[in-house]
Amino acid sequence: MTQIINKPKDTVSQVLNGVAFIHQDKLERVKNTGIIKYKNIKKNQVAVISGGGSGHEPAHFGYVGSGMLSASVSGPIFIPPKATEILKAIKEVNSEMGTLLIIKNFEADVTAFLEAEKLAKEVGLLVEHVIVNDDCSIEEGSYKKRRRGVAGTIFVEKILGAAAQSGMTLGELKMLGEEVILATNTLGVALASGKEVGSEAEIFHLEKGQISFGIGIHGEAGYREETFFSSEYLANELINKLLAQYRDFPVERIGLMINGLGATTVMEQYIFANDVKRLLQLEGIEVVFQKSGDFMTSTNMAGISLTFLALKEDKWLDYLKEETDAFAW
Amino acid sequence: MTQIINKPKDTVSQVLNGVAFIHQDKLERVKNTGIIKYKNIKKNQVAVISGGGSGHEPAHFGYVGSGMLSASVSGPIFIPPKATEILKAIKEVNSEMGTLLIIKNFEADVTAFLEAEKLAKEVGLLVEHVIVNDDCSIEEGSYKKRRRGVAGTIFVEKILGAAAQSGMTLGELKMLGEEVILATNTLGVALASGKEVGSEAEIFHLEKGQISFGIGIHGEAGYREETFFSSEYLANELINKLLAQYRDFPVERIGLMINGLGATTVMEQYIFANDVKRLLQLEGIEVVFQKSGDFMTSTNMAGISLTFLALKEDKWLDYLKEETDAFAW
Repeated sequence: MTQIINKPKDTVSQVLNGVAFIHQDKLERVKNTGIIKYKNIKKNQVAVISGGGSGHEPAHFGYVGSGMLSASVSGPIFIPPKATEILKAIKEVNSEMGTLLIIKNFEADVTAFLEAEKLAKEVGLLVEHVIVNDDCSIEEGSYKKRRRGVAGTIFVEKILGAAAQSGMTLGELKMLGEEVILATNTLGVALASGKEVGSEAEIFHLEKGQISFGIGIHGEAGYREETFFSSEYLANELINKLLAQYRDFPVERIGLMINGLGATTVMEQYIFANDVKRLLQLEGIEVVFQKSGDFMTSTNMAGISLTFLALKEDKWLDYLKEETDAFAW
Repeated sequence: MTQIINKPKDTVSQVLNGVAFIHQDKLERVKNTGIIKYKNIKKNQVAVISGGGSGHEPAHFGYVGSGMLSASVSGPIFIPPKATEILKAIKEVNSEMGTLLIIKNFEADVTAFLEAEKLAKEVGLLVEHVIVNDDCSIEEGSYKKRRRGVAGTIFVEKILGAAAQSGMTLGELKMLGEEVILATNTLGVALASGKEVGSEAEIFHLEKGQISFGIGIHGEAGYREETFFSSEYLANELINKLLAQYRDFPVERIGLMINGLGATTVMEQYIFANDVKRLLQLEGIEVVFQKSGDFMTSTNMAGISLTFLALKEDKWLDYLKEETDAFAW
């Protein structure tokens, strides 16, 4: 399919200029970088940064704002930014209280962000990190090592951003982040692969009427293909698999996020939401926070992910509900 | 492409239930109807209603909220709601100051909404309407009669909703609406047709690499097909055609909306936004309000529309900038 772009190599830079134009009241691009920065950063709180490869828009620049991220760093499509660029972002937003990096659990992302943290510490900056690994698609046995960071990252960004704004220290934020990450699980499915930007090539291939369970956000095919029956059937499968993650961890009140992966219509998202609601009622699980939309996409993949956050502390819900001016929340 | 639905005939009802679930803090569905209603309606202001066929989500339920719509009414896909259902919505939200209907200029929509207005007046209710006809895709000569109501409708809803909240009377709102509509123009293009819900059938067909100018939001093919060159080339064509609408009407300061039609990625929207910004700078036109996102879609059509609103009065900009809790604004 034709896409509305110019030269493919200019894509990310032009996207970031477009973001800085549309959201000029609040956001600015640090020139010639992948950094989108909040214009009104408060210096008396820990700064929070996230980022990664492009192709997941509105992640992460859509979450830069009051009580959420201080800055985002975008790399090329599906490739994390360089450590030196992340270091630049740290220097741009740094406060005396330090900077927290929120990293999605992909090997290249972790390498780049930890290298940046090391470089920052070498010049005397206070930096810590958390690694989000909410994806529960990997079959048991290997999953501790391989869980990827996907849409649940947005919940982590919201909670830690609001907590940072409330004055929490860097060490407290890291601990809170690790607890929230343990309580967060996501499972995604695709109905059709996305395409590479500026290309007709599908990243993987699905027969018509087939659905792939456990896809990643970089076009990784899932662990199992099956026939698609209905939204309700799909919701049931995802809910069962997600609830199984909470075996050692009783879940009563949850926050949930339904995330379109890029080419999923708003109609489909709300039909699926309605099925999730009814099925969770039958399970006796109370939903106290719910969102639906395109929060972390995979270029133009047709598909959806469902994220559960077990709300262990009332305070987490307060952080989720706290006002923010981040445009994509 | 497989879609995440259940039985196609249940689509609209399940979408509305999903909306009422996800946005339960603010919105409710009036049972067994296409009506989504704001939970916190103020009775000391004119009520504002819009609606039409489904398939344009998040229009119009996404604009129900403080300082915008009091309620939306959704019909079947691409078919307006019945007059009796619109009448029910009027009764649900009516205040002593009356109700304003915002109608998109399609024959079936106008017929249904005006019939509802007639029925409401017969039972003594105070109702007025405006008809939005921002689409400037129809070639000259016939255009006065045939201009359709498309994405610019959202600007009209925002301005009139904020003006209603500020205490404007029904008559004043109608006059303001007509002035704003005269100053609003939209032009849309498709890169691929949308599909009927639950069907593989394309609504119209475009060869690969071709772009259709002047498409409607119900899958109507455009008035001209040409080869797609680049986002910048496309932006230039749309801007020239839009500015030509303001010949008798000097335009210096504008608000603009870039609208994805359903299957257009966030990346494409911002690349296009960046091109629009640069080209308008060259034209010496000052952009004082700008938005980009999926505001009024046509199921899963790949394409984009550009809306200009010539800001004749400073007050219009205040209304655009006024806070609202409508979730899709």
